[in-house]
Amino acid sequence: MTTPKHYQALSQEFQRIYHFQHLQALGDWDQATMMPMGGSHGRAEAMAELAVHIHQLKTAPLLLELLDCADSEPLSPSQRANLTEMRYQTLQANALPSALVQAKTQLTYQCEHAWRDQRKNNDWQGFAPNLTAVIDLVREEAQILGEAQGLSPYDALLNKFEPGTQACQIEQVFNEVKTWLPDLIKQVQQHQASRPHLTIPASSVDKQQALSLDVMSLLGFDFNQGRLDVSSHPFSGGVPGDQRITTRYEEQDFLSALFSTIHETGHARYEQGLPLEWRGQPAGQARSMAIHESQSLFFEMQLARGKGLLSPLTAKVNQHLGTQFTATQLEHLTTQVTPGLIRVDADEVTYPCHIMLRFDAEKALVDGSLSVADLPDFWDNAMQSLLGLSTKDNDRNGCMQDIHWPVGELGYFPSYTLGAMYAAQLRGAIEAQLGNIDQLVSDGKLNRVFEWLQHNIWSKGSLLTTNELITAATGESLNPQHFKRHLFNRYL
Amino acid sequence: MTTPKHYQALSQEFQRIYHFQHLQALGDWDQATMMPMGGSHGRAEAMAELAVHIHQLKTAPLLLELLDCADSEPLSPSQRANLTEMRYQTLQANALPSALVQAKTQLTYQCEHAWRDQRKNNDWQGFAPNLTAVIDLVREEAQILGEAQGLSPYDALLNKFEPGTQACQIEQVFNEVKTWLPDLIKQVQQHQASRPHLTIPASSVDKQQALSLDVMSLLGFDFNQGRLDVSSHPFSGGVPGDQRITTRYEEQDFLSALFSTIHETGHARYEQGLPLEWRGQPAGQARSMAIHESQSLFFEMQLARGKGLLSPLTAKVNQHLGTQFTATQLEHLTTQVTPGLIRVDADEVTYPCHIMLRFDAEKALVDGSLSVADLPDFWDNAMQSLLGLSTKDNDRNGCMQDIHWPVGELGYFPSYTLGAMYAAQLRGAIEAQLGNIDQLVSDGKLNRVFEWLQHNIWSKGSLLTTNELITAATGESLNPQHFKRHLFNRYL
Ligand SMILES: [Zn+2]
Ligand SMILES: [Zn+2]
Repeated sequence: MTTPKHYQALSQEFQRIYHFQHLQALGDWDQATMMPMGGSHGRAEAMAELAVHIHQLKTAPLLLELLDCADSEPLSPSQRANLTEMRYQTLQANALPSALVQAKTQLTYQCEHAWRDQRKNNDWQGFAPNLTAVIDLVREEAQILGEAQGLSPYDALLNKFEPGTQACQIEQVFNEVKTWLPDLIKQVQQHQASRPHLTIPASSVDKQQALSLDVMSLLGFDFNQGRLDVSSHPFSGGVPGDQRITTRYEEQDFLSALFSTIHETGHARYEQGLPLEWRGQPAGQARSMAIHESQSLFFEMQLARGKGLLSPLTAKVNQHLGTQFTATQLEHLTTQVTPGLIRVDADEVTYPCHIMLRFDAEKALVDGSLSVADLPDFWDNAMQSLLGLSTKDNDRNGCMQDIHWPVGELGYFPSYTLGAMYAAQLRGAIEAQLGNIDQLVSDGKLNRVFEWLQHNIWSKGSLLTTNELITAATGESLNPQHFKRHLFNRYL
Repeated sequence: MTTPKHYQALSQEFQRIYHFQHLQALGDWDQATMMPMGGSHGRAEAMAELAVHIHQLKTAPLLLELLDCADSEPLSPSQRANLTEMRYQTLQANALPSALVQAKTQLTYQCEHAWRDQRKNNDWQGFAPNLTAVIDLVREEAQILGEAQGLSPYDALLNKFEPGTQACQIEQVFNEVKTWLPDLIKQVQQHQASRPHLTIPASSVDKQQALSLDVMSLLGFDFNQGRLDVSSHPFSGGVPGDQRITTRYEEQDFLSALFSTIHETGHARYEQGLPLEWRGQPAGQARSMAIHESQSLFFEMQLARGKGLLSPLTAKVNQHLGTQFTATQLEHLTTQVTPGLIRVDADEVTYPCHIMLRFDAEKALVDGSLSVADLPDFWDNAMQSLLGLSTKDNDRNGCMQDIHWPVGELGYFPSYTLGAMYAAQLRGAIEAQLGNIDQLVSDGKLNRVFEWLQHNIWSKGSLLTTNELITAATGESLNPQHFKRHLFNRYL
């Protein structure tokens, strides 16, 4: 077997790109957690220079030549999977003319900037023309990306975040969900109507921080390879060997920081568990946004809101905050279902409604069947039918609430609900193989759950496609019935 | 006047280099303050990649061509100064063959690594061959750098840190100092013998940190353009618009963190005060290591140990730490003169002895008149003659104490004492123009001192040579008499 020298050369190039992406991750994290305001200008310039450099590396003609040569080399299945990912990343970087990339960067920067005030002021008339311009450009982007990959325009956007996933599959899944979810929500509300009202006592940031760190340890976060800090919006950043997660403490609501820490810990453990021998290579990276979200939601929803983990969690809350909650009280507080207008505040049951609405809207915006002018009515109708709420003359809390569209990120929203579904499906597989998860946790065998995830998801990186990964782990493709069963089990 | 288009193109190239240096500064700071141990490997790889990239940018053939073309363009005096700095940096980057640079990186990495244990174990026999190999390579480096600039080998090393300074000038200055300093040290010790003994109460890290931050505000540190953190060795890092300084808290000795914070604040204000209109250009950078140290030592020695600032400083100490010091007590604690073996623990008066010894030694090591084998005897003799102390069989606290030589940084040591001398000379100029500094501070006019430094030093960046800068600010070249007068005034 000859040495695959072109493949080796490619690996080196991607390793180099990865080193600069390491610096990008550091710059982003520092900007959100440590950087004083006065550092913004210099940092923005440095990060822009870095982005240009990474783009140059990814679009170097040498890379395309090497890709073609490597294709005919004798490669192991893993090397071939890596080559596929390399080709995909190269295609994504090369597909768009740089004039379009620059125009989008400028336009979305302006749109986002104006949106921050326009949203506050419920200024739809001001926002609509900006959003129209962004959507027009995104349509152009989708068209070009689609042609390069033989995909429809919207599928091309979807594939930026979920390679291999098509809108028609998601439609099928979501259409089925729409047949039972609105009804389930009503039933759950009736079911929870008799719950006693609980108040949450205030707790200091210091105590909440100690609680967060303690819970991260419980969940196996490796502090030798990461840290917890504070930012205005919680996120997980850094690199696989150095995960930087953040939270935000609200004195009046310790559950906010606690559960966002648990969520980000799920993201971080995925990154910390990515295959070390593939670090720096495309095949060593996290599979997709939905798989990433499946891990954070597995931690936040499947594990932390389950009876097994709620018990030690309640003990830690009481210990650090001096409260006297029972596990049942904490369960009630964290499983309360209340239809609302705001996606990021939504509970586990109503959350998919927010996503399905956005999925329908952005598909229609991209294929031109919905104009930006008609978006408020569309939103109001969908909210009425899904959650029984109106957003009439309240666009601030309707179609203007998210940052995704102002910054031109269409195709991202489905990841959230796909992630929730994958999480439920993974739970099903774990329970089939290891037994009831709450029981495992109660028996002190939480680690067996993590080992399963390490073996079946984390260690696989991008060596398998999303569908291969989920099929290998659970024995079937995406099957939303697990999510349905989970919601019915937990909430009725 | 035609547009100097080659000069403009050069400026853009150096701006680009600066953006990557921004990322380098961030990576270094994060590594020392925030990064968990497990992140080391990935960070080291990313930083090495970045260093290679910066070196490539600095040695691009295009740069040399542009430098030649720009030379004949009509430039303003400031642009010409910038061009001189560009040429200097390019020369430094191009002079050394990359094989030598790589060999030095590897060799010094190994030497430093082994040194950490060898120093602990007082293992001179183990350390000597490693140091010999490093010195041999540094001699080669010095030879090449010297030939490229028409300088003697040692002057070439000196010029890496102090462009334009020659060993013969320093020799002249140091030889004069040797005629009076050993005697002064004895006199000061007698003078201080009757001082009452004071004990330092323990203080918590939190209180010391609040004190540090408060004192930084008093000294005009701009927290919108910087921050204070903790590292195992205090340093100032970051970029001019975002200064990251660090300190280290010892519960048993609050003076350590307090005065290292004041020292680093001096470095940071210099950086924060560099000319905004030249930011990112070689002419906009700090002039030299000695000028940098002159600012930190001006803050730490001239200002903070002076009667003017000691009074508000004492108030803040008492306020934050709950102590009851008088200003005189704090003065006694911070001006105690005690000959010792360790440079970094030395007081203001004995410090130059440590530097003069190292300057003589490294000159002789580079010109071959001193062999590594003879270094311990050389050190012992010099310590005996300068401070009356022996390092016989105590190399750990003698010639093995500093990290500089194991990492191949010869030519750096003189900067410390040149900095102390420049600081005293600047004080002389300020007092000639504005009146007694202690009086100014007592009168609430500390800001006038900072304005003078801003106008005469900080805002000049590298637009002037070191000699031009000091002459413009003080009316004369380096004149060690100011330092002598300062020591006699303060300590006798
Ligand atoms: Zn998430
Ligand atoms: Zn210093």
